[in-house]
Amino acid sequence: MLKSIILFFCAAAAAFTLSGMESGPMKNDLDMRIVRLSVVIVDPAQLDEYLKSATECGKTSMREEPGVLMMYSMSDKRRPNRITILEIYADKAAYESHIRTPHFRKYKESTLKMVRKLDLLDQTALIPEMKMK
Amino acid sequence: MLKSIILFFCAAAAAFTLSGMESGPMKNDLDMRIVRLSVVIVDPAQLDEYLKSATECGKTSMREEPGVLMMYSMSDKRRPNRITILEIYADKAAYESHIRTPHFRKYKESTLKMVRKLDLLDQTALIPEMKMK
Repeated sequence: MLKSIILFFCAAAAAFTLSGMESGPMKNDLDMRIVRLSVVIVDPAQLDEYLKSATECGKTSMREEPGVLMMYSMSDKRRPNRITILEIYADKAAYESHIRTPHFRKYKESTLKMVRKLDLLDQTALIPEMKMK
Repeated sequence: MLKSIILFFCAAAAAFTLSGMESGPMKNDLDMRIVRLSVVIVDPAQLDEYLKSATECGKTSMREEPGVLMMYSMSDKRRPNRITILEIYADKAAYESHIRTPHFRKYKESTLKMVRKLDLLDQTALIPEMKMK
């Protein structure tokens, strides 16, 4: 009896682990995603302050918004005031909810005068199910 | 006794799950990473063939190379022959190993005449520990 109970627990734990590893978004869910590259040219004199705001907004969005799947921001090594942000939203509703959040509004308002140019480049992911290791 | 054993299994499973969730690369490891945006302008007449090669190479790299942490490729919606690939390598050795693999060499050679322009833009990640959901 004890052996059976232990075996049951092991099997249940294994099944749980495997389901967590293998389950992922269905194809339809992947098609709903919004993938965007935002390219921001920042006033070099205000770069430190911009980076602080962008980092804070990125962290809060990832932590508090389940529909924000990625908010990976980068500074170009040869031109550090050129920032690229890979943004992935679960769907249009997640994007619309994001731009109404207090942390996004705070970022947007506080950085308005730091941004010289902003390009929003909507993308189609070639392998949408890919995840970072 | 039985209760203690079951409790032990539950605690062990919980500890295992938590350690898996919370363990991640150390700061030094994050500093070693290579983050790059490759921007590829493809001959529109050969775009389908290029996308096939790039997708195959991306999938194989992620599957077979532990040091390739990300190889997320995107096609611009307004200009579909503009491909951007977010490449993240664990360190310089992982990158150098990658460009010597048969699948990368095959991709490089087979797409050489399809590529009109290639920009390799090395980046500094603002939040290097961020992972896609």
